[in-house]
Amino acid sequence: MTTRTITILGATGSVGASTLDLVRRERDKWRVETLTANCQAQELAALALEFGAELAVVADPSCLPELREALAGSGIEALGGADALVEAAARPADLTLAAIVGCAGLAPTMAAIEQGNTVALANKEALVSAGDVMTAAVARHGTTLLPVDSEHNAIFQCLAGNDPAHVRSITLTASGGPFREWNHQQLAAATPAQAVRHPNWSMGAKISVDSATMFNKGLELIEAHHLFPVGLEKLRIVIHPQSVVHSMVEFRDGSTLAQLGPSDMRVPIASCLAWPARMDTPCEPLDLAALGELTFRAPDEDRFPATRLCRQAAEQGGAAPAVLNAANEIAVAAFLSGQTAFTRIAVMVEELIGRYAPAAPVSLGDVIAIDAEARRRAHELLELA
Amino acid sequence: MTTRTITILGATGSVGASTLDLVRRERDKWRVETLTANCQAQELAALALEFGAELAVVADPSCLPELREALAGSGIEALGGADALVEAAARPADLTLAAIVGCAGLAPTMAAIEQGNTVALANKEALVSAGDVMTAAVARHGTTLLPVDSEHNAIFQCLAGNDPAHVRSITLTASGGPFREWNHQQLAAATPAQAVRHPNWSMGAKISVDSATMFNKGLELIEAHHLFPVGLEKLRIVIHPQSVVHSMVEFRDGSTLAQLGPSDMRVPIASCLAWPARMDTPCEPLDLAALGELTFRAPDEDRFPATRLCRQAAEQGGAAPAVLNAANEIAVAAFLSGQTAFTRIAVMVEELIGRYAPAAPVSLGDVIAIDAEARRRAHELLELA
Repeated sequence: MTTRTITILGATGSVGASTLDLVRRERDKWRVETLTANCQAQELAALALEFGAELAVVADPSCLPELREALAGSGIEALGGADALVEAAARPADLTLAAIVGCAGLAPTMAAIEQGNTVALANKEALVSAGDVMTAAVARHGTTLLPVDSEHNAIFQCLAGNDPAHVRSITLTASGGPFREWNHQQLAAATPAQAVRHPNWSMGAKISVDSATMFNKGLELIEAHHLFPVGLEKLRIVIHPQSVVHSMVEFRDGSTLAQLGPSDMRVPIASCLAWPARMDTPCEPLDLAALGELTFRAPDEDRFPATRLCRQAAEQGGAAPAVLNAANEIAVAAFLSGQTAFTRIAVMVEELIGRYAPAAPVSLGDVIAIDAEARRRAHELLELA
Repeated sequence: MTTRTITILGATGSVGASTLDLVRRERDKWRVETLTANCQAQELAALALEFGAELAVVADPSCLPELREALAGSGIEALGGADALVEAAARPADLTLAAIVGCAGLAPTMAAIEQGNTVALANKEALVSAGDVMTAAVARHGTTLLPVDSEHNAIFQCLAGNDPAHVRSITLTASGGPFREWNHQQLAAATPAQAVRHPNWSMGAKISVDSATMFNKGLELIEAHHLFPVGLEKLRIVIHPQSVVHSMVEFRDGSTLAQLGPSDMRVPIASCLAWPARMDTPCEPLDLAALGELTFRAPDEDRFPATRLCRQAAEQGGAAPAVLNAANEIAVAAFLSGQTAFTRIAVMVEELIGRYAPAAPVSLGDVIAIDAEARRRAHELLELA
């Protein structure tokens, strides 16, 4: 059996934890190179010790002393700070899981891509805000990009072995979120507590609100546009409340391939870890007879304009998706803190895209600057309101 | 563009017609080698002329004069009789469609397999009655076997690029037929006219009755067992009245790949014609939002014992599937002619399997002899009843 090396950028987050859960089940197949966290030094040290990592890195340098102490005498190298994170991501690994949340993940993800091996990508900003820059680097370095997100991983599996030129359409499924049956009036009065109760997936507050607004699906549409360049007009969204079908691809002959599975991130992560083979997961077998029915309906972009805004931003290209993403983050935070109404989120995003149209980013530095400026302007918009 | 040669065994049947409909749309990609029919000389001659075939063959030698006359002066060779049919099937072709119905298709299908190129298989008996003999020949000659049946083609597509060792289960979907909601009493009184009204597919009388008894799905289970040797215990059946999901494969990681599409044989045939690429078909795109729902339930082997009988025959192996298939054909014919009750079909099949257990066939000759003897004994059973 060949042993492969793995680096996990964002080891203490939920995707990192699910990944390590799977690596734990096949310990003899993996040598853990680097594990990173933002600051959770104790947790990171415990994982580094358990998996015998070569290197542990905290992005926040103020947490390095605690990490050093926890790893003292272990022989595991400990580093801290943004530069150390990028340096660690640049070290060769057969597989790098890029699972740092937010724009903080951009530079280490880019370093992993430039290292030229296989990158399992879970960082949304890499394709939403920095899509053109990242995919150019992927092409330049011959990197294999494996999508971790359940929808994109489903599409990746359905496309395997097929020529993208034979694709008639790609359909992302969306649960529709907790408000899918709500009318305009109810949506305008939606509270943060209502928005974070997602029906199928257990998720953080930000992504739960994104699911409720459908920005989550819109951002996935932008990512799909970069991952699977078949043309935006071939990318569709369908509401599928049961979240059993994770996405599908229709080919020119009328065949549609769909990937189905439980709402468990270990399934798409296992697909990335073992690709192009398969590995066991402890997930229950699919029992469609027990489920009884799968339902589908067209999205309503009148009540949920987010997917329309994301599609427009993807069509516009350049800086628009980065501005949209930053504006959405500020608007969601404002909603969660009770500063603004649920329905104002999409309105604010649309306003900011209309007001702030910088030149297309050509580097990660440009993306980060656009993101920061968009956030600043989004805060201004909030104060004006 | 490279031109490929194609031979169609059974050109005037419904699978043959659908295939030629697709070839007609990509005339520049194909050179038609041989077209065959049982006796429809005029129809066959017209197709041979239209497609510029090299050879036309009627299985029934009494139809040869009519074929010769219709092709006179065309330069197209015309032959007749069972030997000529086998000889034609043995001529090299890049792709041979084996679509002759019944045991009459066995010898030409075998000749096509022995020719060693790619065979798109639509003849059920080749895998149900002669499964071991045929798959041994496929292995010996390195033939590529592409399944034409929509369920098996779906599985073939879902398995593409995956190691069969990674399969957790394969699930054949079944519409459940026109009687899926009927109770025992209603089933016992079912008439031929009721049985041939299939809800989703337009089919002949025999296969419609097979769909109503679920023998159709049971026979497909036996075929799947030969096509995809993952172990009988991994083969499942689920009732799916809409017939949109044509079948699915679950992998060890919890991923299930499903193939969906319209109830149009041109989709799986196109998959065979273009494999491993894809070709256009005129089939409407799948619109799940318009369909609204897909439902699933467990099969009821109490009301519909056919799938249990077929699974047992596959487990038993040897001659059992051939005996089962022959008994079913006689029983269905007896039901269609008003000689026996609908619910007697499965009873008769079970009785004959219990009474007639010949040695495992090792050649096509054995299979044909077993088939004939099983039919004779099935007729006896009918007369005894």
